Amino acid sequence: MKLEVSPRQRTQEAEQNEGLEAWKHPKQLCASLDYGEEEEEEVTRMVPPLNFGMVDDGVFRSGFPDAANFRFLASLNLRSVVYLCPEPYPEQNARFLGRSEIKLHHFGIQGRKEPFVGIPEEMIREALKVILDVRNHPVLIHCKRGKHRTGCVVGCLRKLQKWRLSSVFDEYLHFAAAKARKTDQRFMELFDTSSLVHLLASQC
Amino acid sequence: MKLEVSPRQRTQEAEQNEGLEAWKHPKQLCASLDYGEEEEEEVTRMVPPLNFGMVDDGVFRSGFPDAANFRFLASLNLRSVVYLCPEPYPEQNARFLGRSEIKLHHFGIQGRKEPFVGIPEEMIREALKVILDVRNHPVLIHCKRGKHRTGCVVGCLRKLQKWRLSSVFDEYLHFAAAKARKTDQRFMELFDTSSLVHLLASQC
Repeated sequence: MKLEVSPRQRTQEAEQNEGLEAWKHPKQLCASLDYGEEEEEEVTRMVPPLNFGMVDDGVFRSGFPDAANFRFLASLNLRSVVYLCPEPYPEQNARFLGRSEIKLHHFGIQGRKEPFVGIPEEMIREALKVILDVRNHPVLIHCKRGKHRTGCVVGCLRKLQKWRLSSVFDEYLHFAAAKARKTDQRFMELFDTSSLVHLLASQC
Repeated sequence: MKLEVSPRQRTQEAEQNEGLEAWKHPKQLCASLDYGEEEEEEVTRMVPPLNFGMVDDGVFRSGFPDAANFRFLASLNLRSVVYLCPEPYPEQNARFLGRSEIKLHHFGIQGRKEPFVGIPEEMIREALKVILDVRNHPVLIHCKRGKHRTGCVVGCLRKLQKWRLSSVFDEYLHFAAAKARKTDQRFMELFDTSSLVHLLASQC
């Protein structure tokens, strides 16, 4: 399922790697801050965004991150965010991306309630082009709740990876749960991946 | 959240990487087989095991894999499997591991129904030592359904990664869903990670 580097290479890299990931040494994260022991312990807790998940090497998914999630997001060393809502990106989040040199890719998809007949296929195709380009990795895909818009984009990525449809739906349901929409599943089933297949090979 | 190699390194590797992952070129997988076009298309579909998920770089989770999942598992280039049920490993699965040079780490944890008061903490600690050792990566953690035993091990890993408890439970619930057990959550809450923290640093 790996998108790019072989696990053996990665493990060898890991064995040689001198760097320390931020989350492994949380006390270093607030070394410059003046917290008491208990506060420091709380401050250094990792809080992934709502509905966070790892899709593949260098590809993550979630609901809308807020300030409480920035420390965790920083530990992912993101290069890009694929944002799937029409609303402008909140100033606080935009500032975090700026400070962290993370590029925002904005695709304004309406989060309509059912009946949901207007999933913009071309916009999802454009979002997938960004996600499939390893030069944008690590990338976080998010919408508001990480269920429908994000679920459709990830489902289309799984189709591209040739997952059987029942497996694509199973993963969609992990995140959409009680809010699952048959119209999302129909969209994923009908989505034509043929125009994107060449982008998978180009990653090697 | 990365366990080992920095994403920049990984992306550079990816840009240089000459190898093609099996799932990207499924037709190559059955090049030696004599299937008709339609059959070939079906044969080359990827079928992850029930409740499959990516926990972190080189760490995966699932329910019990069967023969239909072997092609997908092969694409992960696994080095190890951490198996959490007391029953002997099925011959067919053992043969697949043998062919693929995947090492089996077997921790026989009873899958008791509630009231479930006997989660063997020491065995889960030993399983975590295997999972935290990047020399065993990529590693697949599985039990029978990938909900309770696997959920507890992954939950304890998340505590070690300093995830806030509500986030640990949120991930557990993605997989356990309607079968979630308060006793599993209590176990994760009480699990003491102090004896394992040094293993995180040792990965760098």
